[in-house]
Amino acid sequence: MVEGIGASSGIAMGKAFVIPTWEWDFPEKLIDVTDLAFEFERLYDGIRSSKDEIENIKQEFVTVLGEEQTSIFDAHLAILEDPIFMNEVQGIMQRQYKAAEVAVKEAIEKFVNMFDLLDDQYMKERALDIKDVGNRLLKHLLGALEETLPPKDQPYILVAKELSPSQMVHLDINQALGIVTNLGGKTSHVAIMARAMGVPYVLGVEGKQGTPIQNGDFLIIDGDEGHVFINPTDEVIEQYKIRKTIWQKMHDKLQTLAPVPTQTQDGVVFQLAANISSVKELDQVLRNGASGVGLFRTEFIYMDRDSLPPEEEQFSVYRQVAEKLGGKRVVIRTLDIGGEKALDYIALPEEENPSLGYRAIRISLDRTDLFKTQLRAILRASHYGNIQILYPMISSLEELHKANEVLEAAKQELRAEKIPFKANIEVGIMIEVPAAVIIADLLAAEVDFFSIGTNDLVQYILAVDRMNETVAHLYDPFHPAVLRMLKTTATAAQANGIHVSVCGEMAGDIRALPIWLGLGITELSMSVQSILRVKNSLLQSRYKESAAIWDELLRCTSGTAVLEVLNHHSHQDVLT
Amino acid sequence: MVEGIGASSGIAMGKAFVIPTWEWDFPEKLIDVTDLAFEFERLYDGIRSSKDEIENIKQEFVTVLGEEQTSIFDAHLAILEDPIFMNEVQGIMQRQYKAAEVAVKEAIEKFVNMFDLLDDQYMKERALDIKDVGNRLLKHLLGALEETLPPKDQPYILVAKELSPSQMVHLDINQALGIVTNLGGKTSHVAIMARAMGVPYVLGVEGKQGTPIQNGDFLIIDGDEGHVFINPTDEVIEQYKIRKTIWQKMHDKLQTLAPVPTQTQDGVVFQLAANISSVKELDQVLRNGASGVGLFRTEFIYMDRDSLPPEEEQFSVYRQVAEKLGGKRVVIRTLDIGGEKALDYIALPEEENPSLGYRAIRISLDRTDLFKTQLRAILRASHYGNIQILYPMISSLEELHKANEVLEAAKQELRAEKIPFKANIEVGIMIEVPAAVIIADLLAAEVDFFSIGTNDLVQYILAVDRMNETVAHLYDPFHPAVLRMLKTTATAAQANGIHVSVCGEMAGDIRALPIWLGLGITELSMSVQSILRVKNSLLQSRYKESAAIWDELLRCTSGTAVLEVLNHHSHQDVLT
Repeated sequence: MVEGIGASSGIAMGKAFVIPTWEWDFPEKLIDVTDLAFEFERLYDGIRSSKDEIENIKQEFVTVLGEEQTSIFDAHLAILEDPIFMNEVQGIMQRQYKAAEVAVKEAIEKFVNMFDLLDDQYMKERALDIKDVGNRLLKHLLGALEETLPPKDQPYILVAKELSPSQMVHLDINQALGIVTNLGGKTSHVAIMARAMGVPYVLGVEGKQGTPIQNGDFLIIDGDEGHVFINPTDEVIEQYKIRKTIWQKMHDKLQTLAPVPTQTQDGVVFQLAANISSVKELDQVLRNGASGVGLFRTEFIYMDRDSLPPEEEQFSVYRQVAEKLGGKRVVIRTLDIGGEKALDYIALPEEENPSLGYRAIRISLDRTDLFKTQLRAILRASHYGNIQILYPMISSLEELHKANEVLEAAKQELRAEKIPFKANIEVGIMIEVPAAVIIADLLAAEVDFFSIGTNDLVQYILAVDRMNETVAHLYDPFHPAVLRMLKTTATAAQANGIHVSVCGEMAGDIRALPIWLGLGITELSMSVQSILRVKNSLLQSRYKESAAIWDELLRCTSGTAVLEVLNHHSHQDVLT
Repeated sequence: MVEGIGASSGIAMGKAFVIPTWEWDFPEKLIDVTDLAFEFERLYDGIRSSKDEIENIKQEFVTVLGEEQTSIFDAHLAILEDPIFMNEVQGIMQRQYKAAEVAVKEAIEKFVNMFDLLDDQYMKERALDIKDVGNRLLKHLLGALEETLPPKDQPYILVAKELSPSQMVHLDINQALGIVTNLGGKTSHVAIMARAMGVPYVLGVEGKQGTPIQNGDFLIIDGDEGHVFINPTDEVIEQYKIRKTIWQKMHDKLQTLAPVPTQTQDGVVFQLAANISSVKELDQVLRNGASGVGLFRTEFIYMDRDSLPPEEEQFSVYRQVAEKLGGKRVVIRTLDIGGEKALDYIALPEEENPSLGYRAIRISLDRTDLFKTQLRAILRASHYGNIQILYPMISSLEELHKANEVLEAAKQELRAEKIPFKANIEVGIMIEVPAAVIIADLLAAEVDFFSIGTNDLVQYILAVDRMNETVAHLYDPFHPAVLRMLKTTATAAQANGIHVSVCGEMAGDIRALPIWLGLGITELSMSVQSILRVKNSLLQSRYKESAAIWDELLRCTSGTAVLEVLNHHSHQDVLT
């Protein structure tokens, strides 16, 4: 059993399908070269076998992961024909009279070291590619065993050193039982998507080859506890089959809560909405009785393509969401790229600190062409359902005014074109920059609602990048400064009679429920998977108790103390 | 005349000394290769001439810039012998039958593109090196003119595409009349150092070769207006000679203020201290009548070396500062590396957002060995003057407690070793993380003073990297949220009876004076150059007027409005 971090709830059992990113433990012995011509022959043989193997894997992947995902293998094939890389290998052999495997290894190290430090995501992936291909070649040169490929049409647990959000988009929920990775974070977009798709996910599993898992290993993964069992004993399998049954029962029990009205014991009614990234999730949104979509992350419409999505295409997606949700509220956040999310076809500057850089509304206000196209598509869709607009990363009144000017221009165009839209569409802003909290009173007077993005807000308040493992222990959503900022925001919203919701990870954390209750925040938006769990907790809560907790919370001088107060007052979560 | 950004005040005239970072405008014509052996001969000739030239320049640099600075040329010589780079060049010639200059150009582009994207400062410098050397080689292959070298022992205006803080440390104030660069920012450490050293500096000057300036050009640079005149007419020279005289008169007039007591018209006494990075600046600190050193940036002691500075060496520096300042207050900030400042011998992780990462007190609390050594050195020096300790980047009470534990351990060690120190040494914290402002009431109860670091604080409040040109227009120290945060900090400090000073760039901005006056903040620490200018403004201010301005300031809804209020109430600065 290896320990990782549970990033998406649930238990999965099945065979591992490892996306190959080997790190070979290559023996450092010197291999005598007697005949350079023979070495070159071995090198060419190895290249041929590697190419054949990649072609085979590519065919496997097409059935398992779909067509788009297999383009990575074309890139791998290209590397085996790349003159710079192969020239380097041959150069080392020729100049230094070294064996093929030694030369390949040195060339890999040279190139990977160079690429690996690159800040550019594309280049980083190239480094991974070179490592993959080089190691595959090494494997053939060293005469290692062929990897076994998973049988077609069979479910699998996906294992990889790292997954990208765009790889996740292509994941087939019906085939992928679970996910295990080495790299990644609980609040990464991959983790958010795994939770949204209901796929158990354990990350932070370390091993020589990215993870310690071999292709075809039988795995049990526990996404709640963060455990991964590799080829476990029958005993463990039995035990987990029982656990899985219990988990399923809990899950089923929660499911019965879906149609129940969402209110506390003393009758405070809550709206529990869903954060979604794709229309794929809408069935689950409805199945879990969500009050609507509190955050539609539109950037995923922009990802995995070569050019900007046209207005018509965006309109069709937004309309689909609005119609599927019936009259329920759908909050569409305008494009939030930059930071950790990049697009190939929008030139973003190289930035030392992308989280403090050119992103979200800053790009939209700079590229008003792009922004207006999106606003036109949203406005047009507003005719077909209960749509609201949400601007991300607002930090000043000026930015809000500028965004509204573009919105007004879009409206005027549509009026002129006689295209219907909801003229008085509600407009809100994300509260995720500290400045927005501090001037929340000014902002509240000019918008229809606030949506508190706790992920970024906590990050900026504490000056801690939540994706940075070295400082992750300092990322504390229960820091007293965070609580005070939340209170400031809620107070400003209420004083101005606008509604306020919370849409960061904190919204799905049942420990935080008394915080919202005490602040009079009754709208939360979270991953689809969290809704029923939070609802279950809410159904057992009392508003009056929670209001009193705030006096205690405000006396706390540390996040630890805050959590103690919350734990002390928490209702036993009957399902854990 | 070319326009740049004035980054350090003053007027300089003299010959340009260009640190070579050419960007060649290489003709894209195809050069026929008739004889590959001849091309190789040309390549080797070019390499030989380039080496000779670098050796010559190196000799020149030794006299002008000192021994340490010339190590860059050894690196350049090494590249001309580097097998990977030269192999690439030869490979292109051989495989593609291309002329030497075409091959060199392609090889440069390939390597520079690879290195240039690197997040690692060392690798970035390597990219610059390869470009320099490659371009020098190109110049020889293309038969371009020899560059003229500046006469020895003659003052010069340093021109470069970019300067690093460590290059600045080596700059000889007696030789460098001024500085012109293409890259850099007004709040970069290089700019801060230029101001501290009293060297006029214009940055943001763009040209094909980094800047449009050639070695030996006669320049006039105006560090206040951001103008650079290249080989100006006699008329312009005359005009600037007059301006320089006026500037000198102003400077001299300001100098007469040095011994005058620092107080407003209505008798509010101020402490104007200096931010320093090195003992070199102490003479100027005393000459300008500073009340002390409000911020001693100790990281410069750690820079430009291969290993951690030993306790004894640090002690000697701190003691020197304390003794030179007599009884005046010296606030020593503990190590603030990470972010934009890296050290070769401390492994810092690759970070996506270094400003939100592993830096300052976070490193000190993680590497308590290093931290305790520094605290021991500071404590020992406290016996010889009026030293106080300042922790950077504090964001919670826990961090403060942990830092104080290490301080206590250091004190106990010194007691056991019978080494004298000031037992009740004052300890303060930087207020530069938003969380620290929000819990300023809690922090104020446990420290002796606050020092508001406006540079980072504004950056985090607004989520804007001040060094990022793409979003620099959003970096607004006069944003209403910033003003409110300043007020929160001042109020908390005053309620707890501790003193509070400001040490960011804002402290030296005379437009901000009414802000401090109105908040009752009477301690400012700034670059040595700003002290007398701020003092001149203060001498003409009235506390009562400024207190009233705050009512107006708090009603402002934008930074622009804040500046209008401040401008409206500002006293005409008689010196500008």
